[in-house]
Parts: sequence; structure tokens; C-alpha cells
Amino acid sequence: MKPDMPDAPDTLQALRDALRVFAAERAWEQFHTPKNLAMALSGEAGEVIEHFQWLTAEQSAALDAGTRDAVALELADVLLYLVRLADVLDIDLAQAAQRKMAINALRYPADKAHGRADKYDRLG
Amino acid sequence: MKPDMPDAPDTLQALRDALRVFAAERAWEQFHTPKNLAMALSGEAGEVIEHFQWLTAEQSAALDAGTRDAVALELADVLLYLVRLADVLDIDLAQAAQRKMAINALRYPADKAHGRADKYDRLG
Amino acid sequence: MKPDMPDAPDTLQALRDALRVFAAERAWEQFHTPKNLAMALSGEAGEVIEHFQWLTAEQSAALDAGTRDAVALELADVLLYLVRLADVLDIDLAQAAQRKMAINALRYPADKAHGRADKYDRLG
Amino acid sequence: MKPDMPDAPDTLQALRDALRVFAAERAWEQFHTPKNLAMALSGEAGEVIEHFQWLTAEQSAALDAGTRDAVALELADVLLYLVRLADVLDIDLAQAAQRKMAINALRYPADKAHGRADKYDRLG
Repeated sequence: MKPDMPDAPDTLQALRDALRVFAAERAWEQFHTPKNLAMALSGEAGEVIEHFQWLTAEQSAALDAGTRDAVALELADVLLYLVRLADVLDIDLAQAAQRKMAINALRYPADKAHGRADKYDRLG
Repeated sequence: MKPDMPDAPDTLQALRDALRVFAAERAWEQFHTPKNLAMALSGEAGEVIEHFQWLTAEQSAALDAGTRDAVALELADVLLYLVRLADVLDIDLAQAAQRKMAINALRYPADKAHGRADKYDRLG
Repeated sequence: MKPDMPDAPDTLQALRDALRVFAAERAWEQFHTPKNLAMALSGEAGEVIEHFQWLTAEQSAALDAGTRDAVALELADVLLYLVRLADVLDIDLAQAAQRKMAINALRYPADKAHGRADKYDRLG
Repeated sequence: MKPDMPDAPDTLQALRDALRVFAAERAWEQFHTPKNLAMALSGEAGEVIEHFQWLTAEQSAALDAGTRDAVALELADVLLYLVRLADVLDIDLAQAAQRKMAINALRYPADKAHGRADKYDRLG
């Protein structure tokens, strides 16, 4: 993905490193088991959802500035726990994402999936 | 975060762009409302948690290769929906993460939070 | 709620008792910590959401028979884990629900909350 | 389940009826689409999980009174949204739960599932 700049710093890597330091400085590694981090990730995803649950689709696409800002910080929480969880599991998140996108491209051929929200096993 | 290489491609940006193309090629923008994507994000976080629910903390840190690989793809799903949700909301995920880390650094001073899992409002 | 029939069997109590037996017969009490059951509950809620994520509000209210049946079993899963979690925590779910409804009645006076989806702290 | 008292009030039915009245009095039916209620259910399950995410299994089974009380109200929230969601989908929650318990009994024979947390498709 970054053929010309193999040494370029990357947001995901920078966050991973910063979170390692943050946890180490607070002796939080003891709490950061994969199990606990999976729970924290899910809890934060729940906080994201609470912002949208009573909105119509249209309203969800036209958040006022305050809500949008609050949502941004919730998304950040999800990302931080996601990066930390991947790190303690020694999973390369960027690589996994690329792998999953390749799988999705096979599962959802553009012509068959066009305009359809069906799961791949229902695309005839 | 990347002062010397302002033009370096970045995983989050690359994923955002790839997901835009992926959605456009399938005419999926109609389904990708913030509300729907928040649901998809939460659903994927639920799939992550199902891998860990019956494991002890120790077992969760010693996954067999097959489970670890499956978890990697679930984390990828979370990341993909997270990036897509941020994109349709026009939220800069990397910036939000940095902002949240700065907030966390203030909320959880290393000395007061040392070895404690308490929420910030309980750190005396 | 049932002043005249204090001894009437009740679905929640019957489920609680049946789940106790089910767990005991399989020696599953070891897995049924509150932490694990909270995860299972959340995982099942995630499965519910996956049925609805790409549907419009209208479509969600007009499920085909097969989807509705599948959703019924997902809701059952949520209920079963909820009842079991309350049991291992020695929480009386029916009583808690009545208590919460009383709180909600105070937080959301019918006149102020009329036609509004706002959280109680935003009702003027 | 209650062969001798077909007319006995039941907690789930009483809650369903009370929630109908509560929604009607506030003109909230417009917000209570299955899609929205599925989101609310998931959001509440996320709040449950946040109480447990940093606790060990042992700590989760020995909550202090204040936390246990807070958890009771979160479980109540899950139950209320679950009952309401089933109602708007015209799903009989008690019947679905009994049906799912019958399925589980077949999937997890006591002898094969004894002391094992494996999913049914892995029980040899």
C-alpha cells in the first residue's frame, strides 16, 4: 500500500505505539487482556449506537455540530481499543483489513451486488 | 504526527478511499447512512466478543492459530465499518484519535491512575 | 403487580429455574460468571442488530416470516442470557424492571416528553 | 407453563402492556420501529458490559452494593427494550424462549456438553 515509503510512519502504527506507552506508564497491561479489551471495544460501539438510535436515516446524516463532535470522540474510543486489542493479540490490523477487503471483493462482485444489501450467501 | 512526510499515504486514508470506491462500484451509498453503519459497527463488535465470551483472561491471550485468524478478520470488519462511518460523517478519524488521547492523558494522570482501572471521575 | 396471586408461576421465574437446571446438568456454572454472561448478552444483542442494519424503518416493521422467526430466536437468546445473568447476580429482574419504569415515569412526564425522543436531561 | 392458571398475569405480559401505555401516552410509537428498538437494546447491552469490562471473573461475582444496584437497572433497561421490541414485532417472547430452550436441549446433550464451553457444532 506504501511501496515507495516503507519507513513512513502510519497512523495505526503511531497509535499502537502511543497506546503501548500510555498503558505501560499507568501499569495498565494487567487490565489489557484480549477479553477485557474486546469488552471495552463493544461497550464503545454501544456508545456510538446510542447517538443514532432515535434518529431517522436523514437525521443521522445531518448531525448538529455538538453531536458530530461527540460522535467523533466515540469513534476515536472505538479505534483506540481496536488498535490496542489488535496489538495485544499481535495482529497486524492494516494487513487484516486488506485481507478482508480482498475477501469482500470476491464475495460481492460489483455486478451481482449492485444496489443490493443482501449478504453474500444470498447473492445468486 | 508525520511532520516530515505530509504527503505519505496512510492506512486509514487508503482504507477510506478504497471503501469509497467499493461502495460506489456497488451503488451501496444508499445503504451507508451513518445510522446503518453505526449498527453494522456494533454488530461486528458483537462478533468479536463472541470469540472471547467463554474464555478465561489467560485463554484469551493464548488463542490457537485458527481462532486468532478469525479474530483478525473480525477486527478488520470493525475497522472497515469504523473508517466508512467516519467518512460518511466527514470525521477525521486520526485527528479524533489524537484528540481523545490528549483528553485521556489529562483524565488519567500516570501517577493517580497507576495500577487502577477506575474511571477518571473516581480518581481522587 | 400480581397482588391476588402471589404463588402464580411466572415466565421469568420459570425460565430462571429452567436455566439453573440446564446449567447444572452440564456443569456450566463454571462458565457462567457475571462477566462472561454480560459478554454473551452483548453478543446476542449484536446478532439482533445484524438483522436490521440494512433495513429501512419501514422494512424493519414488515419482516418476512423467515426473518421474523429468526429474530424471535435471537430475542429468546437475549432473554435467556439476561435471565441467567440476573440470577447469578441475585437480581430480581421483574422488580428491577418495575423500579426502572417508575424512574422513567418521573424522568419523562407525558406532557413534556410528548412526541420527543430527547433524553430526559434535555427535557426542559 | 401455567396449565392451572391460564388467566394469571405474567411479568412479561404486564411489562408489555405497561410499555404500550407508556409509549402511547408520550406519542412515542413513531420512534419505536423495530430497527430503532434493536439499536436501543444493543446500546443498553453495551452499558451492562461497561460495568464488567475491567473486572476479573471473581470481582464480577462480588459486586459492591452500589454497582450491583446500577447493574440491576441496566438489566431492567435491556428487558424493557427487549419486551417492547418483541411487542412491535408481534413476537411472543415467552414462547420463543421455550422454543429456544428446546433447541438448546437438542444441541447440547448433557453428556456431550458436560463441562465444555464449545459451540454445539464442535461437540463431536
